[in-house]
Amino acid sequence: MRYELYYWAEIQGRGEFVRLALEEAGADYVDVARLAESEGGGDDAVVRMMDAQQVANPAFAPPYLRAGRLVIGQTANILLFLGDRHKLAPSAESGRLWTHQLQLTIADLVQEVHDTHHPIASALYYEDQKPEARRRAEDFLENRAPKYLGYFDGILVQNGDGRYLIGRRTTYADLSLFQIVEGLRYAFPKAMKRLERRFKRVSQLHDFIGEKPRIRAYLESTRRIPFNQMGIFRRYAELDRKR
Amino acid sequence: MRYELYYWAEIQGRGEFVRLALEEAGADYVDVARLAESEGGGDDAVVRMMDAQQVANPAFAPPYLRAGRLVIGQTANILLFLGDRHKLAPSAESGRLWTHQLQLTIADLVQEVHDTHHPIASALYYEDQKPEARRRAEDFLENRAPKYLGYFDGILVQNGDGRYLIGRRTTYADLSLFQIVEGLRYAFPKAMKRLERRFKRVSQLHDFIGEKPRIRAYLESTRRIPFNQMGIFRRYAELDRKR
Repeated sequence: MRYELYYWAEIQGRGEFVRLALEEAGADYVDVARLAESEGGGDDAVVRMMDAQQVANPAFAPPYLRAGRLVIGQTANILLFLGDRHKLAPSAESGRLWTHQLQLTIADLVQEVHDTHHPIASALYYEDQKPEARRRAEDFLENRAPKYLGYFDGILVQNGDGRYLIGRRTTYADLSLFQIVEGLRYAFPKAMKRLERRFKRVSQLHDFIGEKPRIRAYLESTRRIPFNQMGIFRRYAELDRKR
Repeated sequence: MRYELYYWAEIQGRGEFVRLALEEAGADYVDVARLAESEGGGDDAVVRMMDAQQVANPAFAPPYLRAGRLVIGQTANILLFLGDRHKLAPSAESGRLWTHQLQLTIADLVQEVHDTHHPIASALYYEDQKPEARRRAEDFLENRAPKYLGYFDGILVQNGDGRYLIGRRTTYADLSLFQIVEGLRYAFPKAMKRLERRFKRVSQLHDFIGEKPRIRAYLESTRRIPFNQMGIFRRYAELDRKR
């Protein structure tokens, strides 16, 4: 069975957490919106699947994944599903719930990153909320990012050697934390340098994941969309503080 | 087995979604922080459980639920667990994932409600971010709330008679949507009157859940903490717009 991923064609965004899991699983999938329009691709394909008039169980927002007759929405929910199918999470209930719990905490962090450039309204341009973005980003870098990264660093300490958040295998939560580091490095290069010195195990996990053969091959391929100013992680120099 | 819920003693907050599920399930549970300090209660009991130095698998934030040897964090994750144990979600994979998907969408909405009064920093007072809150609340009531409520209204239309989001039984997602309506009525009474006229099925679901015997008994008990200005849903007249 070939999975169909529905997510915007031009950005990493929340879809990237799913892409990384599919890649590490070596799963057969098609990134639908990135197909030519003549092949049913383009962002319209993503929008169509959200229309309650036409689709059963429409999602509120992408990404969603078609897996045979199932259509699954919400990033963490998709990963819960893929974790079971592809051994990207422990199969015992306790480990399965713990992995999902960490993923949901990453989802909260992702939302906070988004709000550093869109603290007032996602429908407005960044330019229409710049002073607010500057205040929010300052608080994010000063308080929130250290709180989250410190939390994950502590979990890595608890679990041993800084390569796995959970047990002794790579999970989808590890892949997602890798993407958090990638994204924060892009968005806040100065602040992130300081943060990584403080939270070394998070940095170590990033490097370990980035060297895994399938992830490395993916990152070097054209399937990996470069970071840009339309996704969750955006680089605005005025939001990045060094101290 | 008696569940232990760990959540702040003075607010409904995110813990309320768990309380509603425990009540509807008729589960045996103790709301730990609400015990006397001599019985191990108080907010300190909640804080202790987040200390990575002392606790395995600490949560990033409350609520968390102790169920025998399991300690489960993240509201939606706790509900996923309770849904399985107490038939508050379908047992088939597709229905189980769909229920969780809706819950995660409700979690996103809850975060947006929180940010109407704290758009810049959760650690600052409302008074320190009032102009920003006004802008954000205006966008929330104009765009975001109708988008979310319209989405759930559409799901209720798809599924039939406005009593169940999923299938023909009450799920934890129904209980959570009930709480959303309760909270929005408290926070934005004027705007919510207008919104409920527009999204009638969401309103119907609220009334149906509120009349369920166990929920009704809970709401009338002292176990239900009244809404106040410390939770997710807060009433600031200047943020509530009528038109």
